[in-house]
Amino acid sequence: MPPETRPAVAVDQARLWERHLEMAKIGGTLRGGVNRQALTPEDAQARALLARWGAALGLDAGLDPIGNLFLRRPGQDASAPPVLTGSHLDTQPSGGRFDGTYGVLAGLEAIEAIGRVGIETRRPLELVVWTNEEGCRFAPGCMGSRAFAEPGLLDRLLAARDLDGIRVAEALHEVRTALPSTVAPCGLGGPVAAYVEAHIEQGPELEAAGRVIGLVTGIQGRRRILIEVHGEDGHAGTLPRRRRKDALSAAVAMIQALEVLMHDPEDTVRFTVGRVVVSPNAPSVVPGHVLFTIDLRHPEGGTLMRLGDAVETVCRRHVGPCTVSVTDVSLTMPIRFEGLVPDTVRTVSESLGLPSMPIASGAGHDAENLHRVCPTGMLFVPCERGISHNEAESAKPEDLAAGAQVLARVLVELAGPAGGRRG
Amino acid sequence: MPPETRPAVAVDQARLWERHLEMAKIGGTLRGGVNRQALTPEDAQARALLARWGAALGLDAGLDPIGNLFLRRPGQDASAPPVLTGSHLDTQPSGGRFDGTYGVLAGLEAIEAIGRVGIETRRPLELVVWTNEEGCRFAPGCMGSRAFAEPGLLDRLLAARDLDGIRVAEALHEVRTALPSTVAPCGLGGPVAAYVEAHIEQGPELEAAGRVIGLVTGIQGRRRILIEVHGEDGHAGTLPRRRRKDALSAAVAMIQALEVLMHDPEDTVRFTVGRVVVSPNAPSVVPGHVLFTIDLRHPEGGTLMRLGDAVETVCRRHVGPCTVSVTDVSLTMPIRFEGLVPDTVRTVSESLGLPSMPIASGAGHDAENLHRVCPTGMLFVPCERGISHNEAESAKPEDLAAGAQVLARVLVELAGPAGGRRG
Repeated sequence: MPPETRPAVAVDQARLWERHLEMAKIGGTLRGGVNRQALTPEDAQARALLARWGAALGLDAGLDPIGNLFLRRPGQDASAPPVLTGSHLDTQPSGGRFDGTYGVLAGLEAIEAIGRVGIETRRPLELVVWTNEEGCRFAPGCMGSRAFAEPGLLDRLLAARDLDGIRVAEALHEVRTALPSTVAPCGLGGPVAAYVEAHIEQGPELEAAGRVIGLVTGIQGRRRILIEVHGEDGHAGTLPRRRRKDALSAAVAMIQALEVLMHDPEDTVRFTVGRVVVSPNAPSVVPGHVLFTIDLRHPEGGTLMRLGDAVETVCRRHVGPCTVSVTDVSLTMPIRFEGLVPDTVRTVSESLGLPSMPIASGAGHDAENLHRVCPTGMLFVPCERGISHNEAESAKPEDLAAGAQVLARVLVELAGPAGGRRG
Repeated sequence: MPPETRPAVAVDQARLWERHLEMAKIGGTLRGGVNRQALTPEDAQARALLARWGAALGLDAGLDPIGNLFLRRPGQDASAPPVLTGSHLDTQPSGGRFDGTYGVLAGLEAIEAIGRVGIETRRPLELVVWTNEEGCRFAPGCMGSRAFAEPGLLDRLLAARDLDGIRVAEALHEVRTALPSTVAPCGLGGPVAAYVEAHIEQGPELEAAGRVIGLVTGIQGRRRILIEVHGEDGHAGTLPRRRRKDALSAAVAMIQALEVLMHDPEDTVRFTVGRVVVSPNAPSVVPGHVLFTIDLRHPEGGTLMRLGDAVETVCRRHVGPCTVSVTDVSLTMPIRFEGLVPDTVRTVSESLGLPSMPIASGAGHDAENLHRVCPTGMLFVPCERGISHNEAESAKPEDLAAGAQVLARVLVELAGPAGGRRG
């Protein structure tokens, strides 16, 4: 039937909010945040809770070899590739209650709301919890969606170890045993009709603009560079400046020059020196070795490459009597979400009186990997003061509900009306 | 008898060198250095070895309540305050074979050489090993000489703890049990006729000038300042620069501005940022907190105070959107060695054909504390390339022997001829 004649799907704001609070108890921290790192007992417990909620709605549950959890609402055409929505339940060590979790619970709420008004879709709807998006316990991050998009990586990813030497494969075993027995093993990857992921913005732009729905235009590119400055340890009291090879002094000059290089009047360039390791790091010893990281992001691949490539030249110019090595650690080129999914998000938002605001994602998401295998898009809702990856992370119940409402209608549109032709 | 008619004291270069190599085995590192931190089993073992060497020379051994070890060669007048020489056997975690150890072994060699030619002195000669000069395991440093000069500090110093929570008092117990039973407890402090300490220069000036004996004119003043920059953690991908409170960015601007402030065409100012602690120190998180230390040294008290006092103003000027707190951690005003001991070192060096070169000490030493209670002085010998507090620290056997030769003659002069009047 045409959209205007379908029954109105209505998400339940209170239920959605309550589920966030309930979920936040698992790994909840004293300061109101969440520590629920990938494949820990807490992560397993969170997935088990979700599986129970799904079972109560009659959804079929499956777990693939990398631990991605799927809750499936059948469509009329069992052979049609499903429409996927979801996100992740793992957090950073001092993470918040909404990052990742919102995309999962908004998906559950959308599917429940669709069910309550009895809408049948042609394609199945699947809610997915991707394994290890955060990448803080096991590297790389977005492990589950990465394996989904490229199953050939599975063995390498299963062999990754945390700091205690525990392999992903071992940690997964614990998760499997924690899940209800109704969760059946399923295969890795497979055809998907479309993927849509809801997420809190993790930035301040929606809040600043007073808008509720962010239409994600793409995910900016990221480049990680490691700088190592080699000097010579020296005695702080005896070594005159002209004889010093002070690695910290050189590093400081490099960082200041890089800040000038990266200066951007439009404030689009994201340049961060987040980690600095000084050695021997004793108050009375001239530091002989300094390591620092550069996290550089930009929505345009050309700019990302140009700025990143200039880092080495700037560092060499400020090396003084030391030496420097510049190593590219990783590079993820920017992607753009276009076509089916963002178009649907835009149209649905408009029709619900919540006109969307185009917004680029500063953070990486599982949607990046899905973008390689199916039409993909994301929608953002505001988060308080743009604070994320932080125990203080928060969001408004009404914004979360508005996003879930848009998501529900988008899923219905993407899954197509029952009774249509196969495809 | 007048100096020119005394038998010639001759130190044994090979014996002195061999003892350095033997001592360096205790806590020896793979890279040729020494890790023998204060009051560890290694420190205890080193003291026990020294006590055995002393016992073989017939020296009486005593251990005071803070763990200073004394080896005494009696003088003719048992009631006369002794002439003290020595240094310390503890090292930094990646220390060298000569720092501290040389002053102890040169003192032992001098006393042995004096004994071998049968010289009797009026005053006793005492070799001392001061406890915890380095201050890396327990703070403050120069703990033994500090307590010796001001016994009222004893209880506070005994209560100091290392990072494992072990108190000095507990660690001392282990040292006591490791020492030979011939080491008797003795009182803390007491009258001293004079103190002279031999040490490697820990700087490059003697080597550069081709001179062997440094006549230490004083120890420069030291000021330790702690800077804490408070910003706000943020997501490296989502937070625009204009909204950041990047504590590292502010700290880097402060350090660069401080380097300008501390610039000294004469290269006398010693300004070192040796420790930087960034939090949370994750590559993709804008750092919300940075702590750094300033080690500032100068031979003139006025300059030391003026420069140190300017630090806070400079830091506030570069604080950006963050806040900063500036804390004075410690201040040691410069001291000058004058009169009896340096005069004797100068005269003796001259008479041995090794004219001394006046040199200011960049590093602190136990002699600083003795300076408060008796005539005090120091002599330096060259160290290779000025490298110290480093496993690569080295020195030439002939330079070490020359210093011990001067020391031996200085001790005889200061202790006075047997048969003289009491005093």
